[in-house]
Amino acid sequence: MHRQKPIAGVLLRSTLFFACSEQAETVNEAPPKVILIIGDGMGDQQITIARTYLRGSKGLLTLDTMPYRGAVRVLAISNDNPDMFVYVSDSSNTATAMATGALTSKLRIATAAKTDEDLETIMELAIASDIGTGIVTTASVTDATPAAFFTHVNHRWCQGPESMEGQFERAPQLNYDCLGRQKENGGTGSISEQIAASSLDIVLGGGSSHFDQFVEGRTDTTVLEVARSNGFTVVDSREQLGGQAADLRVLGLFAPGTLPVRLRGVGDAKAVLLSKEDGRLWEPEPFACEANPEFEGVPTLEEMTTFALDSLHDRGSFVLMVESASIDKQSHARRPCGHIGELGQLDDTLKVVLDYAESNPETLVLVTADHAQVAQIIRETSFFGPQGFGSPGYFARVRTPEGSVLGVNYATTDLPQLEGHSGAQVPVYVSGPGAEKLPTLIEQTDIFHIMASHLGLSETWPKD
Amino acid sequence: MHRQKPIAGVLLRSTLFFACSEQAETVNEAPPKVILIIGDGMGDQQITIARTYLRGSKGLLTLDTMPYRGAVRVLAISNDNPDMFVYVSDSSNTATAMATGALTSKLRIATAAKTDEDLETIMELAIASDIGTGIVTTASVTDATPAAFFTHVNHRWCQGPESMEGQFERAPQLNYDCLGRQKENGGTGSISEQIAASSLDIVLGGGSSHFDQFVEGRTDTTVLEVARSNGFTVVDSREQLGGQAADLRVLGLFAPGTLPVRLRGVGDAKAVLLSKEDGRLWEPEPFACEANPEFEGVPTLEEMTTFALDSLHDRGSFVLMVESASIDKQSHARRPCGHIGELGQLDDTLKVVLDYAESNPETLVLVTADHAQVAQIIRETSFFGPQGFGSPGYFARVRTPEGSVLGVNYATTDLPQLEGHSGAQVPVYVSGPGAEKLPTLIEQTDIFHIMASHLGLSETWPKD
Repeated sequence: MHRQKPIAGVLLRSTLFFACSEQAETVNEAPPKVILIIGDGMGDQQITIARTYLRGSKGLLTLDTMPYRGAVRVLAISNDNPDMFVYVSDSSNTATAMATGALTSKLRIATAAKTDEDLETIMELAIASDIGTGIVTTASVTDATPAAFFTHVNHRWCQGPESMEGQFERAPQLNYDCLGRQKENGGTGSISEQIAASSLDIVLGGGSSHFDQFVEGRTDTTVLEVARSNGFTVVDSREQLGGQAADLRVLGLFAPGTLPVRLRGVGDAKAVLLSKEDGRLWEPEPFACEANPEFEGVPTLEEMTTFALDSLHDRGSFVLMVESASIDKQSHARRPCGHIGELGQLDDTLKVVLDYAESNPETLVLVTADHAQVAQIIRETSFFGPQGFGSPGYFARVRTPEGSVLGVNYATTDLPQLEGHSGAQVPVYVSGPGAEKLPTLIEQTDIFHIMASHLGLSETWPKD
Repeated sequence: MHRQKPIAGVLLRSTLFFACSEQAETVNEAPPKVILIIGDGMGDQQITIARTYLRGSKGLLTLDTMPYRGAVRVLAISNDNPDMFVYVSDSSNTATAMATGALTSKLRIATAAKTDEDLETIMELAIASDIGTGIVTTASVTDATPAAFFTHVNHRWCQGPESMEGQFERAPQLNYDCLGRQKENGGTGSISEQIAASSLDIVLGGGSSHFDQFVEGRTDTTVLEVARSNGFTVVDSREQLGGQAADLRVLGLFAPGTLPVRLRGVGDAKAVLLSKEDGRLWEPEPFACEANPEFEGVPTLEEMTTFALDSLHDRGSFVLMVESASIDKQSHARRPCGHIGELGQLDDTLKVVLDYAESNPETLVLVTADHAQVAQIIRETSFFGPQGFGSPGYFARVRTPEGSVLGVNYATTDLPQLEGHSGAQVPVYVSGPGAEKLPTLIEQTDIFHIMASHLGLSETWPKD
């Protein structure tokens, strides 16, 4: 296993992620804590879209009250030639960068490009130093972002034992699949199996379908049963979550896959393709957002995060990763209300996290995106009126509560239901010890070093 | 004229744009200086595109070395109903916001939505307080961004006397034109006439065609002649610029319109429309950038800015606005090499400005964009290979010096040669006195207040 220069197994007192800080002296004695919130796909476009709808043109998100922000350079590398940069990433390689401090190729989960070597993650380092660990997500807990914080596999789609086969056909351009990663071939096995066998304290999200499968080579034991045997208390409803004692190790799986989102479009909710029929430009009817009834009864990101904080607080030092996954997923699906509501969930969760950090000032809070998404705010009427010129792609007109119309464009591929990512730099917001030293541009791999340094798991970052 | 709460006519000692600062004590005695650099259209996408090409995936722009950055909320309002927000702006209303501290409607130059009242600009306030003033741009000096810092007109296209007529036909959706702004109708006249009659110290850029026209109502006097009579030394070449004494008031016009850009595409330089012919996706051939021969002999933005700094330094206190205009213009035209090279010009200029500020620490430096542009980094190959799915718009594949390919997508309108703007928040970078107090989100109108406060022209911002 390739080590990212950690000082594993030794819990140093917090060195604070930047060396100099007068504040440091006052909080140095408390066990350091890290909370990393990842808005999947939450670039500046998504933040502006959500703020405009949810808070209006005079309002602020909680995110906007964070004291420091910079930008993060997001990169992948080629699997065939790791010296070559790839400018558009996916959540696998970006989560790997943040979790391990290493760049890798797309679709890889905490494994190195080309060599396929496992890359040690911040969660593994934390466990080795008896630091508490938590993963909370609105995606399947086996999805790329959470997976890269603890598991190792060459291909993100290998989420459960049953999906270890057939991946070559799914993405032939990769030139590899998961078969070599099956346990019978000496591999790490699927993502759900690795989570079930882990020493993580708290794992909350969706993805039960990947745990309801028989473990590789068995026809009598499911992955979920392995998790129970390994000491996880398994919960599957909001009510059960509320009833758990905080000192248990908990695996919460609240949906077969991704959790439902908070908002959906009203009426003709989907973005529609503009077309010129009879020389006339068709502008889609504006629509508002409404509560998604499927969201009822599912624990919110805020509730899951509150549970995780209550549980981890007693561990003293901890690292918690919270992902708001459907900013990205709903943007892929061209559903503006979906990504707006999901970013709202992140923002509500951040409020809870900042309240916690206020009471526990040794807490370093980072909020960032793994990569940008291509949804864009553009003019909501066509150039030169209805006979004029408009988007060649998918376009939605969202009626905002303050009474204007927000035009959101999705036009990077005509692939049904799968709009793309963008390679633009993304925001990072920081509060807590040393936050004032955040440079205006960092590498995505620096997220790992900042967290590890604050937890005393690696050398102080940045070096002078 | 509507006043933005300035304390005009009184030169206060610098209050520094934020009230508290220990540094403040040490620089408080030097005459405060403000340099505002506007990258027209320079959102996070443009910065990433240019950095990737010009510096590579391990390199930094000078911009990235700025100590603090936040985001700026960009808004327009409706001319018919100024209480209604418009989410996508143009350079007229955004420059007005920065120059005057007031939101206005699109296409307006330092005039109020609906009422058409003139809005007092930072340059006018500066002149009233005997503070030096400079405007440097790669656009015509009559273009929207520079114009809004000193002139007042209801319509950005009214750049010279001859263009005061016919604007209604050009943009009938506005429901007004410039005729009421003609001098014979008691108006302010065209933009070039207002510049010619101004007390600005330094005005450098393109746009001589708007000064070669006869002033309104005359057939014997051009606008340029008026400028000379008003005390401007007029220069029109790089050589002449080099030869001017620094204590003159100088109007430099180095091209009929926009100045040529530094880089252009090699070979098939234009972005091309992807199409599926015979079911096959056509991926455009990657190309590199090369020096644009038209750029030879024209003063660079860096040279013009150096001249302006040399000239203004002797004034003591000054405010200088520097615009890199063709990030926007080349993005409209879907020319990636054009906007990359132009952002490189901004970055080289920033280096000169930061060197000046290092020797003159009473200098507040702000770098921002007026609005975002829609050019986006997307994957450079189609989903699922050549038989797959690709952009429905215009797409360029730029071969980077480090050997990868950068995919840049333009797909918000099928209007020839006029891709759109985006309403996303844009970056603001700050260095100098009080920079450490920059919030992570400001309003675009705050740019005015920050500058005016530092120059002692208005109350300290932000108020506690």
